[in-house]
Amino acid sequence: MNLTKAVIASALLASGISTAYAGSEIETLINMLHENGMVSDEQYGRLQAELKQNNMSANQEKQAIKEQLAEATKPSDVIVKVNGGVSMKTRDGAFSTKLGGRVQLDAANYSGQPDQGDGTEIRRARLYLQGTMHHDWGYKLQYDFANTGANGKGIADAYITYNGFDDLQLKVGNFKAPFSLEQQTSSKYVLFTERALPAAFSAGRHIGLMASTKQQHWSLAGGAFGDSVASKGGAKDEGWGLGARATYAPINDKISLLHFGLGLNYRDTGEFGTARFKQQAETHIAGINIVDTGTINNVNDFLRVGLEVAAVIGPFSAQAEYITTSVNRSLGSDLDFDGWYAQASYFFTGESRNYKKGAFGGIKPKANVGEGGIGAWELGLRYSTLDLIDGDINGGEADSVTLGLNWYATPTLRFSANYIDVLEVKGGSYDNQEPDVFQMRSQWAF
Amino acid sequence: MNLTKAVIASALLASGISTAYAGSEIETLINMLHENGMVSDEQYGRLQAELKQNNMSANQEKQAIKEQLAEATKPSDVIVKVNGGVSMKTRDGAFSTKLGGRVQLDAANYSGQPDQGDGTEIRRARLYLQGTMHHDWGYKLQYDFANTGANGKGIADAYITYNGFDDLQLKVGNFKAPFSLEQQTSSKYVLFTERALPAAFSAGRHIGLMASTKQQHWSLAGGAFGDSVASKGGAKDEGWGLGARATYAPINDKISLLHFGLGLNYRDTGEFGTARFKQQAETHIAGINIVDTGTINNVNDFLRVGLEVAAVIGPFSAQAEYITTSVNRSLGSDLDFDGWYAQASYFFTGESRNYKKGAFGGIKPKANVGEGGIGAWELGLRYSTLDLIDGDINGGEADSVTLGLNWYATPTLRFSANYIDVLEVKGGSYDNQEPDVFQMRSQWAF
Amino acid sequence: MNLTKAVIASALLASGISTAYAGSEIETLINMLHENGMVSDEQYGRLQAELKQNNMSANQEKQAIKEQLAEATKPSDVIVKVNGGVSMKTRDGAFSTKLGGRVQLDAANYSGQPDQGDGTEIRRARLYLQGTMHHDWGYKLQYDFANTGANGKGIADAYITYNGFDDLQLKVGNFKAPFSLEQQTSSKYVLFTERALPAAFSAGRHIGLMASTKQQHWSLAGGAFGDSVASKGGAKDEGWGLGARATYAPINDKISLLHFGLGLNYRDTGEFGTARFKQQAETHIAGINIVDTGTINNVNDFLRVGLEVAAVIGPFSAQAEYITTSVNRSLGSDLDFDGWYAQASYFFTGESRNYKKGAFGGIKPKANVGEGGIGAWELGLRYSTLDLIDGDINGGEADSVTLGLNWYATPTLRFSANYIDVLEVKGGSYDNQEPDVFQMRSQWAF
Repeated sequence: MNLTKAVIASALLASGISTAYAGSEIETLINMLHENGMVSDEQYGRLQAELKQNNMSANQEKQAIKEQLAEATKPSDVIVKVNGGVSMKTRDGAFSTKLGGRVQLDAANYSGQPDQGDGTEIRRARLYLQGTMHHDWGYKLQYDFANTGANGKGIADAYITYNGFDDLQLKVGNFKAPFSLEQQTSSKYVLFTERALPAAFSAGRHIGLMASTKQQHWSLAGGAFGDSVASKGGAKDEGWGLGARATYAPINDKISLLHFGLGLNYRDTGEFGTARFKQQAETHIAGINIVDTGTINNVNDFLRVGLEVAAVIGPFSAQAEYITTSVNRSLGSDLDFDGWYAQASYFFTGESRNYKKGAFGGIKPKANVGEGGIGAWELGLRYSTLDLIDGDINGGEADSVTLGLNWYATPTLRFSANYIDVLEVKGGSYDNQEPDVFQMRSQWAF
Repeated sequence: MNLTKAVIASALLASGISTAYAGSEIETLINMLHENGMVSDEQYGRLQAELKQNNMSANQEKQAIKEQLAEATKPSDVIVKVNGGVSMKTRDGAFSTKLGGRVQLDAANYSGQPDQGDGTEIRRARLYLQGTMHHDWGYKLQYDFANTGANGKGIADAYITYNGFDDLQLKVGNFKAPFSLEQQTSSKYVLFTERALPAAFSAGRHIGLMASTKQQHWSLAGGAFGDSVASKGGAKDEGWGLGARATYAPINDKISLLHFGLGLNYRDTGEFGTARFKQQAETHIAGINIVDTGTINNVNDFLRVGLEVAAVIGPFSAQAEYITTSVNRSLGSDLDFDGWYAQASYFFTGESRNYKKGAFGGIKPKANVGEGGIGAWELGLRYSTLDLIDGDINGGEADSVTLGLNWYATPTLRFSANYIDVLEVKGGSYDNQEPDVFQMRSQWAF
Repeated sequence: MNLTKAVIASALLASGISTAYAGSEIETLINMLHENGMVSDEQYGRLQAELKQNNMSANQEKQAIKEQLAEATKPSDVIVKVNGGVSMKTRDGAFSTKLGGRVQLDAANYSGQPDQGDGTEIRRARLYLQGTMHHDWGYKLQYDFANTGANGKGIADAYITYNGFDDLQLKVGNFKAPFSLEQQTSSKYVLFTERALPAAFSAGRHIGLMASTKQQHWSLAGGAFGDSVASKGGAKDEGWGLGARATYAPINDKISLLHFGLGLNYRDTGEFGTARFKQQAETHIAGINIVDTGTINNVNDFLRVGLEVAAVIGPFSAQAEYITTSVNRSLGSDLDFDGWYAQASYFFTGESRNYKKGAFGGIKPKANVGEGGIGAWELGLRYSTLDLIDGDINGGEADSVTLGLNWYATPTLRFSANYIDVLEVKGGSYDNQEPDVFQMRSQWAF
């Protein structure tokens, strides 16, 4: 019941006790009958007394009900929702708290060369606490229990937001720099178990400041960043950077999307002067980098530029990105590395990829397993390529084709199987080798 | 108020507004008096008007109360319970979330040889988030903040379950392989502060798949497993294994139990080819292994077989296990190691060990401290022995006697004192030594 | 509505159905009119029947409302509050659970010598679960995700309390030894981003037992402690200690305080026999210790003595501490190190430092940002000095002046900027050097 209704209801309750009160016709009748001489004075007196007492009782009774109703329908402070995790918010929206997380359980079987060890892994095991404080402020802390190490290495998001401006959010803390559609899309929601080869140029999470705005048809974000959580400078200045991303989505409704994006990311290497780019065969369990520049020294800074395009037409989606990285060295020539991927997917069960202001979100099956349905089933295909050879750096070049099947049993569960065929590695430590990967993932996330 | 009652109540409320409405006798009376000529036409008109208006007001009033009552008694979405941790579930049972944990605070004093350093330790400090999603699915993530290290070493449970079949649960993720009564019993609930010497043959937690069924008088579980969370294969295939356990409890009621169990656990060592078995003096603070095979090379695989028996007769309990491990080597003869323990306990305060379909659970004192009682007091005695000598491997042999006192102040609190007398170490690095251990634990768990 | 009111209300509801029931005057009137011959016997019969039926309906209706009201106003089990984190307690107070935390996001710019690397850091990222069990027992587990390492290094608080005695609390587990006003004050609430130079003599957290009492005008705490969480003895006995602190606050109301304190802390080094005292330039990002004794060997034990004084007069506060540490060696002369600081602060916005029985607590702005205000603004000034030179140990001596600005946007948010001018380092590795530090912090905490 909203407040207006409650006020009206209270008013009605109150009005029932006023002048032409409920049952006043009996008093009128008694008066008339007395006037008309139908009841005696003595009878009239008794009736009046009884009437008065009964009215008093009735009023007390109504008052009691009124008080109990007010107690029962007072706006309770906190609304609690459970969907696996739990979210709570005050009725006025000034405060909220959400506890959620994800676990990704992986297994992989490798063939071809180089040797990669078959095995299992918990790819990510994250919990987060996120919320709103005093209307305008937000916070988040997310930790990855599967990616631990010294100096807080496992900290993913850790930030404060200010949301008091219309259409503009300020953020300070540790979070992803605004770069690349596939990076902005959570690992819970990317199409395949691992991101494409050009993720070697991921801008990653750093401690920094960002301003952003997200509209239905466009978004803009820009920020300045220090180094990552686990980096410890000692006597040397840590690295720092600048990053910005713009997206434009001329078509964006529930089942149709056309998205374009441009990202820029500049990193100064601080007093360390090194950079390194490397990539596994779109797998993570064995940990073998099939292409790897090794540590490049004498690096002043480098600039990543990324182009994005994506489309959704009902159950069909397509997405492609090109990323180039230019490395500026104080000794030796400048270096240029690049890569791109293109991918498509189709939902047999009729769902659509879910786009949310600059990134893809989670899938809600039309009918969940456990509630009479078979969940959502999606087939995906990807080609990706990465070139880490330039000048004196022979990091190797690789390209691969991935076939993937996703089963979203419920909005909180996903099971995936991927087959990755690395077509060929050229150059680098694994020249002419062609590993294949079959990997499966079981995931809960909320 | 259940739904039926609410419907009846609503019907009654509604019925009060229908044809022979509440107070309709007054209208009848007025009509009669008018017919009988007791009130004039003019008076009759006034009475009718007043009656009509009052009826309308009364109906509005009733409607308002009806709406407020509906609002007040709508099935609230989430039921919250606090018992130290917190559990929440939706009224329909489709979703639930539980946040709980345990902390074990230990101190130990050592005497005899070898030298073991007196000290303190947080043995375990775990939090878990566990729940139900969309009726048929479950999840859990549990982390041990006291057992941290790189690559997610501290992750204990991390899994998904499917509970949509009658009497059969499927589980995928990281969890304990089904082996050994004392291993299946949580560290919160085992009789002594540390498990018996044969825990050297613990099957432990691995990432895998398991099917299980648990009935009142028997249970059966079997699964296939990869390697442990923190193992990183690199170029080598990780180890894998198969495990199964059957239990039979011909007697199993609140205060009586007779339990038999058989466990099998096979491990292939993958491309690592090594195995190691070791054990401390049923203590953990100093970290000295009094028996230790060291790393055994050229191991293809090994098989553990475990036999279990347990009984509860009111406040008395007894439990014994025998475990043997056969190591199959590609170079060198096969090896056989084994061990067993037998233990008994008695509650002075009348409680009984709490058996739950294949393992022991927590103790609820008859009267809690803080609520007028003294909690539950239990005395325990154990003999255990472990033989890690065979063929060319001289890991040593040890046997020990443990006397333990447990005080369960409340269902969530436990304080324990253990005295462990290692009778003799034979062979291995500590041949002929006889250490003693006195250790205490303070534990909260929920 | 309290229980009494509910009972009265129920009684009133019930009474409405009794003898002189609501509307009984109509029955009286009908009887009178019948007696007076105004209605015929047939009419009287019809009226009575209608009246009876209507009364029955009315009673059923009232009973339904009564039942629904009882359902709606039953005491719900758990009260939930959200203030960023979340706290829940049962209505009877027997159980409670609180989930909270803090994140401190730092950036620093260094100048002068020695070289210190500019950079960023997550200084602390903590979550805690804390609660009450069965009335008299409490627990807490707090982990610092930014200070991780092996063997549970990140565990901050992990303890059990017993609160069943009047005015006396028992605590077992890992927690801060009772020593130093600035140490007892949470890092969320200390005046500057880092504690003063004499924090080199911090007594820190250890696993132990403590008894304490906290009154309006005084507090007393004493305990025995083992070693810290991450220390692993192996064959050597870990260190242990004793600690006590007494405070006296002759003036202590909402806006005025006069506080005196005395702390003693004794540490035996166990079989390790070493001690080390060191300190950074009241900064943490670069990690350079400007004074450092290095590892001192042959140490039997050492004793810290601390003197505290603090005052609050409305928006003004002042605080000073002197700490001396006497090191007793088995080889070499005894050593004496010491340090002190004095600081003052002023709230432009009229708030007062918040003293809670022996330590300072959090600031509640008079008007929050996001709720029409500008938060609380505080300026602080500190001088501190530390001398780590004695006998054969030349750890260096340093003194510094710090100017700080704190902005508390809401009770849960704090932004701080500090400028630290190290006046001079004398002796040690950085003799004659004078580094400056500018550092900023963004913090959420609840």
